[in-house]
Amino acid sequence: MPDSPSTSPDFSGPPFKGAPPARFEPLPADGVLPEGFFSTSNLPTYLHVGGRWLAPTRPRMDCVVVQRHDGLETIEPRRLRRGDLVAMGEAEDGSDGIVVYAKGFLGGGHGANEFRFMSTEVSRERPVNYEELAARVGEEKRRGGYLVWVVGPALVHSRARADFEWFIRQGYVQAVLAGNAVAVHDIEAAIFGTTLGMSSTGHPTEGGHGLHMRAINRIRAAGSIERAVESGLIRSGIMYALVTQGVPFVLAGSIRDDGPLPGVYSHTLEAQDAMREHTVKATGAIFVATALHAIAVGNMLPAFYLGESGAAPLMTICVDQTEFVVNKLKDRGTHQAYGVVTNAQDFMHVLRFYTERWEQGSP
Amino acid sequence: MPDSPSTSPDFSGPPFKGAPPARFEPLPADGVLPEGFFSTSNLPTYLHVGGRWLAPTRPRMDCVVVQRHDGLETIEPRRLRRGDLVAMGEAEDGSDGIVVYAKGFLGGGHGANEFRFMSTEVSRERPVNYEELAARVGEEKRRGGYLVWVVGPALVHSRARADFEWFIRQGYVQAVLAGNAVAVHDIEAAIFGTTLGMSSTGHPTEGGHGLHMRAINRIRAAGSIERAVESGLIRSGIMYALVTQGVPFVLAGSIRDDGPLPGVYSHTLEAQDAMREHTVKATGAIFVATALHAIAVGNMLPAFYLGESGAAPLMTICVDQTEFVVNKLKDRGTHQAYGVVTNAQDFMHVLRFYTERWEQGSP
Amino acid sequence: MPDSPSTSPDFSGPPFKGAPPARFEPLPADGVLPEGFFSTSNLPTYLHVGGRWLAPTRPRMDCVVVQRHDGLETIEPRRLRRGDLVAMGEAEDGSDGIVVYAKGFLGGGHGANEFRFMSTEVSRERPVNYEELAARVGEEKRRGGYLVWVVGPALVHSRARADFEWFIRQGYVQAVLAGNAVAVHDIEAAIFGTTLGMSSTGHPTEGGHGLHMRAINRIRAAGSIERAVESGLIRSGIMYALVTQGVPFVLAGSIRDDGPLPGVYSHTLEAQDAMREHTVKATGAIFVATALHAIAVGNMLPAFYLGESGAAPLMTICVDQTEFVVNKLKDRGTHQAYGVVTNAQDFMHVLRFYTERWEQGSP
Amino acid sequence: MPDSPSTSPDFSGPPFKGAPPARFEPLPADGVLPEGFFSTSNLPTYLHVGGRWLAPTRPRMDCVVVQRHDGLETIEPRRLRRGDLVAMGEAEDGSDGIVVYAKGFLGGGHGANEFRFMSTEVSRERPVNYEELAARVGEEKRRGGYLVWVVGPALVHSRARADFEWFIRQGYVQAVLAGNAVAVHDIEAAIFGTTLGMSSTGHPTEGGHGLHMRAINRIRAAGSIERAVESGLIRSGIMYALVTQGVPFVLAGSIRDDGPLPGVYSHTLEAQDAMREHTVKATGAIFVATALHAIAVGNMLPAFYLGESGAAPLMTICVDQTEFVVNKLKDRGTHQAYGVVTNAQDFMHVLRFYTERWEQGSP
Repeated sequence: MPDSPSTSPDFSGPPFKGAPPARFEPLPADGVLPEGFFSTSNLPTYLHVGGRWLAPTRPRMDCVVVQRHDGLETIEPRRLRRGDLVAMGEAEDGSDGIVVYAKGFLGGGHGANEFRFMSTEVSRERPVNYEELAARVGEEKRRGGYLVWVVGPALVHSRARADFEWFIRQGYVQAVLAGNAVAVHDIEAAIFGTTLGMSSTGHPTEGGHGLHMRAINRIRAAGSIERAVESGLIRSGIMYALVTQGVPFVLAGSIRDDGPLPGVYSHTLEAQDAMREHTVKATGAIFVATALHAIAVGNMLPAFYLGESGAAPLMTICVDQTEFVVNKLKDRGTHQAYGVVTNAQDFMHVLRFYTERWEQGSP
Repeated sequence: MPDSPSTSPDFSGPPFKGAPPARFEPLPADGVLPEGFFSTSNLPTYLHVGGRWLAPTRPRMDCVVVQRHDGLETIEPRRLRRGDLVAMGEAEDGSDGIVVYAKGFLGGGHGANEFRFMSTEVSRERPVNYEELAARVGEEKRRGGYLVWVVGPALVHSRARADFEWFIRQGYVQAVLAGNAVAVHDIEAAIFGTTLGMSSTGHPTEGGHGLHMRAINRIRAAGSIERAVESGLIRSGIMYALVTQGVPFVLAGSIRDDGPLPGVYSHTLEAQDAMREHTVKATGAIFVATALHAIAVGNMLPAFYLGESGAAPLMTICVDQTEFVVNKLKDRGTHQAYGVVTNAQDFMHVLRFYTERWEQGSP
Repeated sequence: MPDSPSTSPDFSGPPFKGAPPARFEPLPADGVLPEGFFSTSNLPTYLHVGGRWLAPTRPRMDCVVVQRHDGLETIEPRRLRRGDLVAMGEAEDGSDGIVVYAKGFLGGGHGANEFRFMSTEVSRERPVNYEELAARVGEEKRRGGYLVWVVGPALVHSRARADFEWFIRQGYVQAVLAGNAVAVHDIEAAIFGTTLGMSSTGHPTEGGHGLHMRAINRIRAAGSIERAVESGLIRSGIMYALVTQGVPFVLAGSIRDDGPLPGVYSHTLEAQDAMREHTVKATGAIFVATALHAIAVGNMLPAFYLGESGAAPLMTICVDQTEFVVNKLKDRGTHQAYGVVTNAQDFMHVLRFYTERWEQGSP
Repeated sequence: MPDSPSTSPDFSGPPFKGAPPARFEPLPADGVLPEGFFSTSNLPTYLHVGGRWLAPTRPRMDCVVVQRHDGLETIEPRRLRRGDLVAMGEAEDGSDGIVVYAKGFLGGGHGANEFRFMSTEVSRERPVNYEELAARVGEEKRRGGYLVWVVGPALVHSRARADFEWFIRQGYVQAVLAGNAVAVHDIEAAIFGTTLGMSSTGHPTEGGHGLHMRAINRIRAAGSIERAVESGLIRSGIMYALVTQGVPFVLAGSIRDDGPLPGVYSHTLEAQDAMREHTVKATGAIFVATALHAIAVGNMLPAFYLGESGAAPLMTICVDQTEFVVNKLKDRGTHQAYGVVTNAQDFMHVLRFYTERWEQGSP
């Protein structure tokens, strides 16, 4: 896992020096950008405006930079209206008044003559340094960071459920982004002791195929997940821990959803908006066993956060059973993702073990 | 690929004979089912009502059977209102007046003493009988079937795009269910010749990372995909073929979406409703390189369709790079899925080759 | 993990009763079988000889049953000579005097009407019951079983090395079957602290690509692994633990081998013979992160062992990163394999954790 | 697929200029190297000897450079005897009189500021340019290259068998490196029409599990594969084509082998020696659906061959169902491998289609 120091560019040298001012043009219609707009990446970006170099707030990729009276903001095109002013240009080297300052964020090129083994970045054959992972996670808690967990249902199927509860209760989780299925399986487990009709030891149960529908129905009858916790219908598990600990969560809907549960954002753009309120605060992110949500969050997660001494890399851990999801994430621009190729259940167990040890060892 | 004959049960024998009438109870509140409701599967199901055995219309799994004045219908719980009458019971063997008649739809158990190799159902090591696949696809066209294609963006990334166009033009496609990304990549290819900034030969292009955003913006400016085809902005590809051939498509939104394109159903429940209007007509389904959409459609696709001589297995082909998606689909109840473990590009190429040959050979 | 009781067939009923005597024919030439020979499986098998039903000793698949003056033995054809008598016939139901008694060894067929989720046998989404696994492994030790571990180099790359040492020292390992690479990486780690030039935290080291060759060279200079342990050249790791604990190991050669190390069986048939001396004693087997060795051992491992009360299923655990190896193993006849889909490093860590707990709890 | 031009280094500049002569030391014992030996890679390498820069013959990785009276040769340490002189040093930059000249052979590092999608090198989502592949393969034939095919049994299981025959007959195959199983399955198909008892359309056959043993037995009775072809026992397939076309093949043994067939090299070091006689001649290599043999050949295959104008990259295509094998190959030093992530059957079908088209188009 790379650990680059924070960086602040030197605006007195290249590529900043001598760059023209950034250009802005108005939207010709609601949600329609002027041709030639600047399309953002997730890397630190500076625009030359009024003789100064400004970094837009709320950075993310695949958006535009909008000029507001009080500064620059990164915004999804669909949210803009006719007349809004967006930055123009395709160049990222300052020649259009915009600099994407990737130094230290894209990993180094190899040296020219360096023959070596184990050169692929993500591999099941590369040992995972859990001590370092646990220390990083622990540091986030200690310094009051904002750790966003993005999790898939495999985390509930398997016995990682109790371990995730532990992380929530211990203060390692500032927000959870997930889908309807995570909550459905977790609540099926809380009410019936099964997930998709399968017992916690992996055996199918009689009549089990309808149990998730019965669980959903009880929550719909209760009115909300929160009320189901209050009423004692849900007495354990991830949702119970989130509600009782006051940790915010976003359940984003998908076309796969049964139900859905009350509280799920079935409108995907509303879901994106709700998720983004957490990614803009993130100082770290952990993705476990989810492709859809990992990539969705990857789309909106900056590769950095602004700390006291400038832009620092945003720790992004992606846990999946194969290399595929991490590589897909990297292929869609989340280059900073550090891949852990393992089973969700085992990851949570081992990370908890090392985090407990870190707690004992940390002053 | 199993090819069971159509089956109509013998209602004069077990488990039908002597079964009590099915029970129905009203919903206590909008979208809230009475406890003990009958949860549907995707298999042929019969209810004992008024002395007759009726099969609910619009079958799918994870729903309920609703009594309407003109018969029984399978409906998502969220669409029901207080007072609607739903079938009750958990038993599928007639003892609650409901029979799930799976005979011939779940594959046979192995015999007790049968040692053999290659016993797993889905494997990259099992040869794919493309001749048989092509004949099945051809037969669907010849007899006026309704073949639903569910496709992921890998089909556009790779060079399968032209092959899919061919199937659309030749009448092998009655509906396409996909996501925003399929259309975005296809339109990026139509306008700029790239997908995610990568050329059709797999090379990255300069400044390519913003091209999909520019493609989306042009369609938003045009107002709709259809108008972009009319205006000549889109002159080739999958969306072009669908629009010009009048083949219906549903683009279902997800939280991963950029844009989205006009016409995408960003509300997931509206998307589900739109998709289901095609799955209820389906006589066959082909899933290519998509996990999210395959499982979403699998959730709503019956394992059978009603032909002239009773319930016949609904051909469901699932193409993916690994066994995982097909097994996941089976694990979520789409037991009839026949897995083809290969690359989307190569699948489309080879299936087209064999389908062209079938056309020449078919009388 | 299935846990069938031991079974002894009832020879007074079908398919035994009334069966003709088994036929035997001589080999026409060294290593050449008479046409129509009986090809063995890994299941309990009985031959009707002299009015009694005899089970051949040293059972395994893909061999023949040879009549020796003192009974029946299962032997590889290549080891036979002209005139040796082998059992004839293809039927396994007694009609040729041979019964393959698979009852309880092949898993049950599903019932006909059983719709359910999670029906595939091996899945990353199925929770692993480590408590049960640890108890099984513990029971093997307690009752003096013979647990054979078959391991691949990923177990050394990752930090599972120390955990495997623990199992060896605690008496949970009766034999290790592996390849040259396992020993090479382990010894590179013992001497240089790297594997394939990568540090234990996953970072490449300067000049690392030659380190495995240097490690091999030092052992060749020492004369043997055992002498390198005695001389203090190797002071830690798997090979160190095996040598100092007196646990037997077979290092089987392959065409991938560098070196090889002294003691590696570079002749594959000699390696098979050495490995089989352990598989015939096995009461349990654990395969971790190896395709080649898992399938080789699967080929020669019976699905059962003979306990006090008859044939009992031989616990066969197969740990791999994806479902593929386990399914391949099953597809090549090792139907009894129980798949654990996870990372080798994490598996060893979690299994050790639960085994330590089992030790504390066991009387 | 990278296509770098041939390169010859400029010996008058750095890192060559001013380098000391290479040092050589004798082996202290048979097969035991002097400490500090130079360990080879698969890249172009030059040693400073007698005032000139010499490239050792028969280059491969994980070996040593030996001084013979007539020049330098790359040799496996196990083949050396006491007193043989080997090059010394760990530096590859000339400071020990040895230069590894990787320029153009390791791929470029990325630029520092280059944000883009699809940055992983091997991905199922990257389109395969079959036209270019076919043209490369065609060029090898046209200019009299030496194309080595390394194939696994999946190529026979699936229906690629006929396509591979076509490539053999058309002169696109100069040598085949494979294992016992490829020949066994191919011959089972030739004699019984099945592979591992499964029909060519993927269905299991009655009593099929012994058929591969019966096939092996018939060849053992015939004495050799060649005689089985002559006698008419084998009338089709890969082995038939190889024998009748006079294309050399090496069947390397492994501990997984049943039989083995006559002609298989059961001693792995003899197999390596036989295989290497082909890799030293190779101007191109195609690996299809094999991990063991791909990595074994990767170990001995140079990254280049010496053409008329210097060292040229040796086209190395690796076809497998997932990214794993290609990445493993790269992680073990075969950096030049170009990955095609697909099914063996479909690859062979599509490559043949494009190669036939190339033949028609080529002058």
